[in-house]
Amino acid sequence: MRRAAPRASSALVACAALAAVLFSSDAWAAGSDASARSFLWIAVIIVAAKLGALVERVRQPVVLGEIVVGVLLGGLALAGFGFVDEIRSDAVVRFLGELGAVVLLFQIGLESNVRSMRRVGPRALSVAAIGVAAPFVLGTYLVGPVLLPGMSFATYLFLGAALTATSVGITGRVFRDAGMLQRPEAQIVLGAAVIDDVLGLVILAVVSSIASKGAVDAAGLGITVLQALGFLAGALALGQAGAPWLNRGFAAINRGAGMKFTVAIALCLAFAYVAHLIGLAPIVGAFAAGLILDEVHFRNFDAPHIRDELIAAVGEADARTRDRVMRVVERHRVRHLEDLVEPVGHFLVPIFFVLAGMQVNLEVLDDPSTVALAAALTAVAIAGKLVSGLAAGSVNRWIVGWGMVPRGEVGLIFAFVGKDLGVLDDQLFSTIVMMVIGTTLITPPLLALLLRRVPKEARALDAARA
Amino acid sequence: MRRAAPRASSALVACAALAAVLFSSDAWAAGSDASARSFLWIAVIIVAAKLGALVERVRQPVVLGEIVVGVLLGGLALAGFGFVDEIRSDAVVRFLGELGAVVLLFQIGLESNVRSMRRVGPRALSVAAIGVAAPFVLGTYLVGPVLLPGMSFATYLFLGAALTATSVGITGRVFRDAGMLQRPEAQIVLGAAVIDDVLGLVILAVVSSIASKGAVDAAGLGITVLQALGFLAGALALGQAGAPWLNRGFAAINRGAGMKFTVAIALCLAFAYVAHLIGLAPIVGAFAAGLILDEVHFRNFDAPHIRDELIAAVGEADARTRDRVMRVVERHRVRHLEDLVEPVGHFLVPIFFVLAGMQVNLEVLDDPSTVALAAALTAVAIAGKLVSGLAAGSVNRWIVGWGMVPRGEVGLIFAFVGKDLGVLDDQLFSTIVMMVIGTTLITPPLLALLLRRVPKEARALDAARA
Repeated sequence: MRRAAPRASSALVACAALAAVLFSSDAWAAGSDASARSFLWIAVIIVAAKLGALVERVRQPVVLGEIVVGVLLGGLALAGFGFVDEIRSDAVVRFLGELGAVVLLFQIGLESNVRSMRRVGPRALSVAAIGVAAPFVLGTYLVGPVLLPGMSFATYLFLGAALTATSVGITGRVFRDAGMLQRPEAQIVLGAAVIDDVLGLVILAVVSSIASKGAVDAAGLGITVLQALGFLAGALALGQAGAPWLNRGFAAINRGAGMKFTVAIALCLAFAYVAHLIGLAPIVGAFAAGLILDEVHFRNFDAPHIRDELIAAVGEADARTRDRVMRVVERHRVRHLEDLVEPVGHFLVPIFFVLAGMQVNLEVLDDPSTVALAAALTAVAIAGKLVSGLAAGSVNRWIVGWGMVPRGEVGLIFAFVGKDLGVLDDQLFSTIVMMVIGTTLITPPLLALLLRRVPKEARALDAARA
Repeated sequence: MRRAAPRASSALVACAALAAVLFSSDAWAAGSDASARSFLWIAVIIVAAKLGALVERVRQPVVLGEIVVGVLLGGLALAGFGFVDEIRSDAVVRFLGELGAVVLLFQIGLESNVRSMRRVGPRALSVAAIGVAAPFVLGTYLVGPVLLPGMSFATYLFLGAALTATSVGITGRVFRDAGMLQRPEAQIVLGAAVIDDVLGLVILAVVSSIASKGAVDAAGLGITVLQALGFLAGALALGQAGAPWLNRGFAAINRGAGMKFTVAIALCLAFAYVAHLIGLAPIVGAFAAGLILDEVHFRNFDAPHIRDELIAAVGEADARTRDRVMRVVERHRVRHLEDLVEPVGHFLVPIFFVLAGMQVNLEVLDDPSTVALAAALTAVAIAGKLVSGLAAGSVNRWIVGWGMVPRGEVGLIFAFVGKDLGVLDDQLFSTIVMMVIGTTLITPPLLALLLRRVPKEARALDAARA
């Protein structure tokens, strides 16, 4: 560790020097084709994300490093670096970030499965219900009237609503990086976050309706809820029935890893699209797609090359050795879907988190009263979700509670809608954004700490069960 | 084969039915967020590309299937399907296609290396020189004056110039799919195509200068040439010196496969950007990046999990078996960069070829005189490049000659510039586009046929050498 540190920092310095040369040269000023420019931005973002991985040295989760690097990159804009705004407004880069979030939730879905989700279903539902109700009540009836007296009820409503969201991306990533997606805590949080997204949709519809028309459109609301539930149920049923068929159909054309990969990723994208169509977040669709794609259904595809070589190598060995080696080979018989999706995730997922960090506007930290209000809101946001962990039953309730804390991009959506409707002024908007950032940044290190405390034996048990 | 065919066609029918449902529903009419839409288009394109893989059944290369599927998709626009134009004009999808071309050339570069390129250097130079000179002379002094009497010399010049381009993407893909990138023929064609890109740059500068100002800007021309040569030489020198350093620097942060992959892909994108800055195609930069990234330089990254399991499995076996198994393991010691880039290629490369096919406007086939002119131009285009194969020395000259034939997107660039400058009218523009399509579609099947005829012994020899 000691020896490696100077090397890592020399890499940092060299990268900074390279960046300085690139940006100071005439090349920078020359107007060039947009897509070539996007190539450069993508390279800058993914290298910056990997420099963020240095936080592992201080035992912090990589995702935190990626967000912090994004915040620092965003801060360069204040220092007069115009390229930062160019990155932020690059439509292609932004799309790749969204695609990264979709791929991440697809990966998380692949590593979960319907059976274990069903097992934790009732508990996930309780956690989601409390995790929505508690922050909403606290925000609307306590924080609003007490800290912001004299504002309209619609404003308080939006404040409460913005506190209800749960961002599954951050939490899922921390669980995944810690290799703990199979734990019941993780499954409960994932299930609750998906339910939360459906509830959030309903709440957004209700409060928007009240804020703009002063009343609730019951019929429209019913349709929204039915569509969302119908999508989730339909996707799961259709997927369970259709996946074996997809497997046979496409394997008949060609059994290569490329075909397997393409069918899977196309299903993920199609589900993301359909989820968006009915008003859910695309990532919920991607998660559902991952959930229904089980390795079992993709048996008809290729075995890797190493298999033949090993069979030849142990041809003359004793029966016992042959048997053992073959068992290893059998375990690695197919290139797993997870392995195929992994490099695409390596490429795209960090773009999402660095961009999320870049959305942070450090200037809002300048106003003390905004900061104080944001601190109060963040405390309520955390308390409201920690309470929901109590409904998780006989698991580590702190892990579930903290897993529900990050608001991420979902909370930001509420803030943007409220601003558009005119019920949130600039200060309140900034406050909500700071609450979102606070809950998002505090969760990864705390969750990683809690996960490290899970006893070694419990981990081994989980691994055996998986 | 017999049994599999009905399954494949049932997959086709079902996909068509799914598409029909999706596009006929209200969902289709509902205005929705652009990026969710792009998710859908990507899914449609990559599934269509895989259906194109059915051409393997009739022993045609997959890339041909992808282009043909693109042409058919494009044809749906004539049948009144509005979504086709939406795909064609989707900026994100187009970017992903360009990124696909960049990734493809990066992969091809990874599988080549500087040493073997240098060995074929002089022959590649001769092939490129003749492959540029012959079609240019034929086009400017024969086809132009004979078939299009009374037009300006600038028009003839552009006609000749458009014939000089070589598209390395198509040929490289065919060689790659056939597992023959290591053959000297492939290396000569790749080298010649890169040189061709530099020459094409010069020719475009010259003819544009003559067409717009009536004279050549010698100073500007010299700078263009020097920049291009400087980039190629500089990239190779810098890469050879810098890659081991990159390896050490980033491996010091983290030795995971994700880090290895990120450093490599970031270098590819940065090189693509710099190539574009100095006026070369981004794919030339990506190829150069792949060329200098040698596995040797990326030794400091992780070994896969299977290794430990196998070592345990043969722990008690006889020495000879242990030795053999270990040799297999050693060969698969690292997850090769190629393996990591492969899934990203599976995802993005077909988008490029399907989109290329979609650019074809089938309506131009309606006018007999345009078709006749295009046929003549295509014949000259093929003859001019086949002649260049004669300079390839003691290899299969037909393979080299045909490898140089496809014009691909590079030929289209000439057509667009000529149209912009007003020296090419609509009919001539269409003629050049048809020539590009003709040379692009005829090459994959012919080249695949020639490669299949390469004697088995020669293939084994190549594999041993690789």
